[in-house]
Order: sequence, then structure tokens, then C-alpha cells
Amino acid sequence: MENKPLILITNDDSITAKGISYLVKAMKPLGEIVVVAPDRPQSGMGHAITIHDPLRLKKSDQFEGIESYTCSGTPVDSVKLAIYEVLNRRPDLIVSGINHGSNAATNILYSGTMSAAIEGAIESIPSIGFSLLDFDKDADFEAAAHYATKISEQVLINGIPKGTCLNVNIPKGKLETLKGTKICRQGKAFWEDSFDKRTDPFGNEYFWLTGNFTILDKGDDTDLAALEKNYVSIVPTQFDMTAHHLIGELNEWDLK
Amino acid sequence: MENKPLILITNDDSITAKGISYLVKAMKPLGEIVVVAPDRPQSGMGHAITIHDPLRLKKSDQFEGIESYTCSGTPVDSVKLAIYEVLNRRPDLIVSGINHGSNAATNILYSGTMSAAIEGAIESIPSIGFSLLDFDKDADFEAAAHYATKISEQVLINGIPKGTCLNVNIPKGKLETLKGTKICRQGKAFWEDSFDKRTDPFGNEYFWLTGNFTILDKGDDTDLAALEKNYVSIVPTQFDMTAHHLIGELNEWDLK
Repeated sequence: MENKPLILITNDDSITAKGISYLVKAMKPLGEIVVVAPDRPQSGMGHAITIHDPLRLKKSDQFEGIESYTCSGTPVDSVKLAIYEVLNRRPDLIVSGINHGSNAATNILYSGTMSAAIEGAIESIPSIGFSLLDFDKDADFEAAAHYATKISEQVLINGIPKGTCLNVNIPKGKLETLKGTKICRQGKAFWEDSFDKRTDPFGNEYFWLTGNFTILDKGDDTDLAALEKNYVSIVPTQFDMTAHHLIGELNEWDLK
Repeated sequence: MENKPLILITNDDSITAKGISYLVKAMKPLGEIVVVAPDRPQSGMGHAITIHDPLRLKKSDQFEGIESYTCSGTPVDSVKLAIYEVLNRRPDLIVSGINHGSNAATNILYSGTMSAAIEGAIESIPSIGFSLLDFDKDADFEAAAHYATKISEQVLINGIPKGTCLNVNIPKGKLETLKGTKICRQGKAFWEDSFDKRTDPFGNEYFWLTGNFTILDKGDDTDLAALEKNYVSIVPTQFDMTAHHLIGELNEWDLK
């Protein structure tokens, strides 16, 4: 008899976040689950790894009947520890999330949720990051969990090519208000940052990073456009960052 | 009379690293310099930003006659603070490094040095990350600094298209042993991780992340191949992570 698929679950909002509890529920029908997730919030950690500090791994009883661990490091550390120290075989699927907040467009670069999925892709393991467009810690994850099951099932059935993963974003709202899924490209946008400058009780300045998300892309094939129209966006994602179209031009430069 | 180009310098090894002092020397002939760099080592921080903590910015006298600041956050935080709080005009060029160690191939994803350059690209500012293939803190940066000047000069002359930056890696060795530059694509490789598992004095386990860099790419047009032959590798870099070639295939999936 064949083994059930082994599914590794992680996130960046920490093991106690509401989003990951819905991802655990969403994966239960699909296979055997192991959770390895950060022990504290790691939003905005991008593809960070922990080099200068030792890592701790602790057994957790966060999810009844599910083998779970907390990791003292980043989401990418969690994936690495899971693959090389925790699991006794390679997982068939890595799912990350469900993130509290959007990882559409350029947000993918800053996202711990998506970096965990990209690390899976680097390891040639089918991987998906899920994010809900709602930062609220009590957000309603029902519709997001529904799509997490559906999309993960398709990945288990169809596979995805080595070196790729999926970036899935789900609009806020009840399931019946969502229009379905759209396969998209990553939209062009950036954060026009501003810093909230304050003075501490000792007279020293400090800054909080804030900003306005600024969309530069009018295309109707982007994740931003799909989400705007209440579709779940699915962006197939890879990690070759070469600007291939510039190789010819740069060869004309005077670099002798 | 035209202003001299304004050049922002940052890194991920912290303002006291030997590599950044050589980058400051390398940029002196090219324009007006401002340094904003992390106050402690931030290797492996990827594209991390600081959301849950306030940021501190301090005037530094690290480089005589050069306006310099330390930032309590990551390399990407340093770039954001520089653009939005420190500089009184947009920089003409952002240079990051010179990193102690390679950022070729997949290492770009984990690299704080390159994330600073990519953040520049997101901000539509010409940006370059420089890395020397020598982790030693006393490494010889003479040849790397020579190429940093040469390549930065070409970027100031030719510009680079919005949304792109350069990932430059320099082999270890004296200038006369290097064969010149090669424009390359990002090589395929991954870290086959292993963890050095230890027990602390209190009987608790902890892990150090280690690993073997494993090359999956036999192409002679990669940064890895160029470096192997003692060329300086230049990879034009962009941040659209869409796997465009998969959009058609995913549209066939049963996601209704």
C-alpha cells in the first residue's frame, strides 16, 4: 500500500497564528502532516537564514494529533531544519501560510511565507505559499482554507516542474463572494516608504517603517488585477533572477 | 555646473567590515559618497525588513571626510532609510558590498548584499552588488575594488534599465591573475544543508546551519562557470519571479 503524501506546513506569522491553524485543517484530507514553524512572528524576513546564531527546535502540542515543532529561526530555517533534521523522508508538498496579509506583486520579495515556498522549490519539492488579503489577527480564513485544499490537491495530482512553486493570494470575504482562480504574472509595484520618526524617553530618535503600496502596472494579467476583481491569484514562481534580455546589451559595454 | 553623481554605499557585513572600506575607496573618484550601513553583521538576511522593531540611525565617523551612518536594521532597511530619511536627493547609484564571500548562483536569494541592490532596482535606482570569493575578514580586496570602480563607471555612463541591477562576483587573487569580465546568467545550484547538532551546558539541543554548495548546472554561460575560469562574473538581475513558461500549463488544471 502506498504511503499517504507527506505534507510539511510552515508559515511566517508563528505557530500560534490563526492562519496556520486553518492551513492544518485544510491539509488534513490530503495526507500526513508535520508542522515546523517559527516560535515568534517573522513577517518581512524575506529569504533570511540564521548564520550567526544557533537554532533551537522544540516539540509543540499546538495542534492535537499533529506532529509539530517550533523553530527559533526564520521560515527558511524552518524548512531547512524540517527537511534535514525532522522528517524521515522528503516531503511530497510544502505549504506555507496562510499569511495574514497580501504577498502579491513585489511583496513576494519581502515575504517570509513565500521564501519558505521558494526554499522548497530550490530543494525541488512542490511548494505553495498562501496569503489572505487581511492583516487582522482574527481574519476569516474559511474561504482561503477552501482554496488551499483545492489548489494543493491539484499540485499533488499534477506535480509542478522542479525549481518552481506557487504564490497564491486570496481576497478577503466569504467563499461565495469569490469568483474563482486566475493564473497570473507578478504585478509591478513598490512601497513608497515613509518613516514615522519619534523620540524615545531618553531623547534619542527612532523610526518605524511605514509606506504606501504603489502600483505601477496596468496589465489585466497580474495578480493585483485578479485580486482587485475578487479572484484568487495564482502566480507560478521561479528563482532565476537573471535579466536575460540585458545580456546582449551589457556585452557592448567597455569593460576591458 | 552639474552636480557630481551621488553614490549611496551599503553592505551586509556591517560598517566596520574591510570590504566596505574598499568600496568607499573605489567610489571616491566617481562622485559624492554617502554611507548608510548596518551596525552589525547581517549576512544571510536576504530581503528582510524590520517591521516589529523600531530602527535607529546613528552618525558614524568610520570613514574620514565621508558622510556616514549606521542603521540598526538590515541592508534593505539601510537603503530605505537612506533614500527616504538621509539623502536630500535621489542617489544616482547604489553600490553594496564588497561582500566577504560569493553571492553567485542561488546565493543571491540569501544575500543581504544583493538584496540591498535589488531594493535599489525596485526603487528604479541603478544599483550594483559586489562580492569577493573570499570569506576571510582580512581578504585582499584590491582587485575587487579595481573592478568596482570600472563597472560602476560604466553604469554611470550607460545607465541600466529600470527594475534591474547587477550582481558582480570577483574571484580571489591578485588583479593580474584575473582574466577580465563576463556577462552571465545566474547558475543553478543549491545548498545541501546539514546541521551541526550540539548540546548546551543545560542539556538542551541546538543546531548550527552548515552545508555543501551543490552545482546543478553544466552551462558555460553561468556566473559559476565564469568564476571557475577566473573571470569577474556580471549577472544582470531583475525581480520578476514569475515562471512565465508555466502560465499556459496551469490554465489546464481543474481549479473550478
